[in-house]
Amino acid sequence: MDSQPTNPRLFTFLAGREGPWAVTELRTVTGEPLQRTERLAVLPGDPAPTTEALPAGAWALRGVTSNERYVTRPEKQQLLASQAPLGRPEATRAVLIPIRKNPAWWAMTQDERRAIFEERSRHNAIGLRYLPAVARRLHHCRDLAHAEPFDFLTWFDFAPRDAPAFDDLLAALRASEEWRYVDREFELRVERAG
Amino acid sequence: MDSQPTNPRLFTFLAGREGPWAVTELRTVTGEPLQRTERLAVLPGDPAPTTEALPAGAWALRGVTSNERYVTRPEKQQLLASQAPLGRPEATRAVLIPIRKNPAWWAMTQDERRAIFEERSRHNAIGLRYLPAVARRLHHCRDLAHAEPFDFLTWFDFAPRDAPAFDDLLAALRASEEWRYVDREFELRVERAG
Repeated sequence: MDSQPTNPRLFTFLAGREGPWAVTELRTVTGEPLQRTERLAVLPGDPAPTTEALPAGAWALRGVTSNERYVTRPEKQQLLASQAPLGRPEATRAVLIPIRKNPAWWAMTQDERRAIFEERSRHNAIGLRYLPAVARRLHHCRDLAHAEPFDFLTWFDFAPRDAPAFDDLLAALRASEEWRYVDREFELRVERAG
Repeated sequence: MDSQPTNPRLFTFLAGREGPWAVTELRTVTGEPLQRTERLAVLPGDPAPTTEALPAGAWALRGVTSNERYVTRPEKQQLLASQAPLGRPEATRAVLIPIRKNPAWWAMTQDERRAIFEERSRHNAIGLRYLPAVARRLHHCRDLAHAEPFDFLTWFDFAPRDAPAFDDLLAALRASEEWRYVDREFELRVERAG
């Protein structure tokens, strides 16, 4: 590539032997597994080595934060009024959930995807129930110049006391109609290293 | 970057001294101008030299085709029933229109953007009036890993006899409420070189 400036909304999740987050669990939910590593770093931009130069077993996933695709103004106001920022001192647990959606999802029109996402799956409404306990940031990977193995990377953080609430949130989303369109997913659970 | 495979939906518009399209006009509509070149090539993937290695005056813009953001199922059915593919033998004229939308546009929620795009600006409905004469392909650039100067690149082709219809289409879109959010735009008109 070239020396064009990096998109300021790009983040890289670099899993390997270094980084401030210690991996406690890597669980393949659907599809091909990814290798478990010791540590995770969440880095702005794309500072990861090239794929060939990554140490054996290490991996990097990249995504860009973007405008919301499905939220309406009243939903956004509710989310803004309730949500907490990432990085609170007490948020010592974090989870990375990469997902890919299947071709049937992407062949749908905007109104069809919205109807499944919210009217039938209550994605925003479910998320709202766990605010401000669970903070999150969504990254898009589908429209990067390099083919990425996932469509979305979501990064969550929370305090240890809110881990059961986070598990409830995950279970509710995975039971939704929207999740029938997810054809690859894993969860990487980490704790802030002491 | 690395050797990850290229996104199969990525295209590069490379303006310089080579390529099958001869530039007939470069017009800055809004914002900073771009340099006029002799030729344009439209290439799958990202085969362009790095920015520093491009000859003086040459430039490259990249974008990814993606799922539609605003179209409903009935609108999509109408578009699919009427549209023509790019590259028809008689389509010897083509136009590249890069645009950037302002922060106010991107701060809006999906329902607000859709209302301006279609209910008030009739973007799909206007486009439909010029099918199948004008074929088009939309590329997204806003969520690439490198910061791109535009949010969208639209590539149109048509027969010479349909050039007035294309001008009407452009005029109708530029007169719409949606276009108040466009803060950079140019048009590059080309003809298939003999």
